[in-house]
Amino acid sequence: MARIVMKFGGTSVADLDRIRNVASRVKRERDAGHEVAVVVSAMAGVTNQLVAWCQGLAPLYDAREYDTVVATGEQVTSGLLAIALQQMEVDARSWLGWQLPLRSDGAHGRARIESIEGAELIRRMGLGQVAVVAGFQGLGPDGRVTTLGRGGSDTSAVALAAALRADRCDIYTDVDGVYTTDPRIVKRARKLDRITYEEMLELASVGAKVLQTRSVELAMKERVRVQVLSSFADLPGTLLVDEDEIVEKTIVAGIAYTRDDAKVTVRRVPDRPGIAAAIFGALAGETINVDMIVQNVAADGTTDMTFTVGKADLPRTLAALDHAAERIGFAEITTDPDVVKISVVGVGMRSHVGVANTMFRTLAEKSINIQVISTSEIKVSVLIGAEYTELAVRALHTAYGLDAA
Amino acid sequence: MARIVMKFGGTSVADLDRIRNVASRVKRERDAGHEVAVVVSAMAGVTNQLVAWCQGLAPLYDAREYDTVVATGEQVTSGLLAIALQQMEVDARSWLGWQLPLRSDGAHGRARIESIEGAELIRRMGLGQVAVVAGFQGLGPDGRVTTLGRGGSDTSAVALAAALRADRCDIYTDVDGVYTTDPRIVKRARKLDRITYEEMLELASVGAKVLQTRSVELAMKERVRVQVLSSFADLPGTLLVDEDEIVEKTIVAGIAYTRDDAKVTVRRVPDRPGIAAAIFGALAGETINVDMIVQNVAADGTTDMTFTVGKADLPRTLAALDHAAERIGFAEITTDPDVVKISVVGVGMRSHVGVANTMFRTLAEKSINIQVISTSEIKVSVLIGAEYTELAVRALHTAYGLDAA
Repeated sequence: MARIVMKFGGTSVADLDRIRNVASRVKRERDAGHEVAVVVSAMAGVTNQLVAWCQGLAPLYDAREYDTVVATGEQVTSGLLAIALQQMEVDARSWLGWQLPLRSDGAHGRARIESIEGAELIRRMGLGQVAVVAGFQGLGPDGRVTTLGRGGSDTSAVALAAALRADRCDIYTDVDGVYTTDPRIVKRARKLDRITYEEMLELASVGAKVLQTRSVELAMKERVRVQVLSSFADLPGTLLVDEDEIVEKTIVAGIAYTRDDAKVTVRRVPDRPGIAAAIFGALAGETINVDMIVQNVAADGTTDMTFTVGKADLPRTLAALDHAAERIGFAEITTDPDVVKISVVGVGMRSHVGVANTMFRTLAEKSINIQVISTSEIKVSVLIGAEYTELAVRALHTAYGLDAA
Repeated sequence: MARIVMKFGGTSVADLDRIRNVASRVKRERDAGHEVAVVVSAMAGVTNQLVAWCQGLAPLYDAREYDTVVATGEQVTSGLLAIALQQMEVDARSWLGWQLPLRSDGAHGRARIESIEGAELIRRMGLGQVAVVAGFQGLGPDGRVTTLGRGGSDTSAVALAAALRADRCDIYTDVDGVYTTDPRIVKRARKLDRITYEEMLELASVGAKVLQTRSVELAMKERVRVQVLSSFADLPGTLLVDEDEIVEKTIVAGIAYTRDDAKVTVRRVPDRPGIAAAIFGALAGETINVDMIVQNVAADGTTDMTFTVGKADLPRTLAALDHAAERIGFAEITTDPDVVKISVVGVGMRSHVGVANTMFRTLAEKSINIQVISTSEIKVSVLIGAEYTELAVRALHTAYGLDAA
């Protein structure tokens, strides 16, 4: 007998047939004697429709009202899945964020979970009732509905697993696990049986869309055993584990890419102390996240500052720099949205030298120019022209020996 | 300065343009210096979709989960209207049933309102904030979402008006008031400037779909000044008033019809005391509402019992009678769903004789056979073949002098 949290994403609950399919999977676990809580996303497409309505009424909508609107998607799915389970003679009830309650901070639209009250759920699960929890939503300190940001249902599931002291948190999705890279680009990409929390965290943060970054952080912190697997196939998935649980270690676990960033270059700013603070302080003041940064010093006492921001933040970035133009003092600003960030991730980098160099050499052999480089302990990222995405990912996948036999 | 509750139905908030139109109307009242609370229904079609999903998963769904699912329709509209108002520089916030809270009893799917906490809304309305309240929903004693039955947003609005001690409750809909009868059938139907609570209550309960019956009951009990008017045209509507506020009294206020009933005849039951209790007790035990009843005594010591039930309840009615067959002892049961109930309503009946006779004579002149008759103090209803609906309504409209000049 185990206590399990199962999470199903939007494509897994896209219509009534798929909701019935999910109910069958839940029933199977319950019939095997397990205690089960389920976390559900909105039916595929629903959240986008709700967001579009908010944006259609006001470009800068009130995040509290946005939360009230978009949280309904998960509310609908939770009620429908409870009905589908009851129809299969499985005792079940839906739980909304405010009913648990799942308390969050007050950052509407991207709230962080503060606590989940689990005692009543544990009691009912012990009596055989399946808890169907609406993902993505919480109760703010203002007594209003909050949402946890796109992909937030993953985080709901992991947090619930921690609160319920669950033995496992199974994240069912439309892929059957975590791959060495995007199988749509690399046919010989391999599914990983296991991946470390650290690697998954880096991969999620640099574009691998399997899990929300925050859910991985939380799983790592709370040591929740997360498994990513398909809701459509009966196959083993990918298990998130501690480093010492991986027997056959590879140097690189996976290669991720994201086209979500844009490059900004501030040209010919005076090369004096405090200039970086002036530029990035202006952006921080507008809560714009800056990712990769590189600085080139020219001979004439000026410098070029190049960095990346999210494409959606580009207009606000230019406005903020323009506003601080006098304080910074630059000649011009150029931008390039046609870039891709490619990252190789692996805990093996800690003990192996030359990982970054393999990357640079491989790209050079394909005549791909590297525009910006950034590194962390277990990751190397480069910014290159977007048109080289497929070429670069395939070449690196081969160079790091990740191709399936 | 007045305190106003405005209620908008599903067709009035069917898309973003119409939601903006509603916001303009609300802003106009606010700009005129009034304190405003708005009650909204789900966007047209949304509730039907949500209900269809529940039914698609289980014919006999759990009403608690049904409520969780269908209440989202009003939640979405409340958030969207708040956003639309803010975009017009009107301070506004949405309120869900559990946030007010609007407490109801635990009869999920058709809950009755028990109380509404109005103090915080009154405080905020005094500061100029518009309260946008999701209609149709409440908080049950089990801490879960309840809904008030189809058309329940009317009742939400009237109850809110009572709780807020509002000066007016304006029900905006897709017709511009209460008519002497259905204008789709009678071209010369007239809009009534005023109608008494009692008349409106009878009309609502016998098929006029302008207002939910319970909302009229509540308005009458709490003396809420309800006005029915169009959200699309700038025209005066129909005001619900006390009898002494109507100057030019007519004998009949309006004619309503409903095709929602079916006729059931239990043939040749023994004509002995307790037989009605046996039949109708069996139906009451299944919470089946019986409307019109007529009993014919035959010469052989048996009797035929004819009555009407809602068409949707017909299968359950037959099952209940079958179950009690031995106790009742009947020869056969016949049913006829092709019937219509036509009602004439007017407080003038109290002081004028011959109103019912005018009805019977008019129908006889058109050779329409009356199958069942029932009367109340201010209403006469007859059951006739459904194919005579238009003929009967038009003839009666003329006979009672209701045709527009």
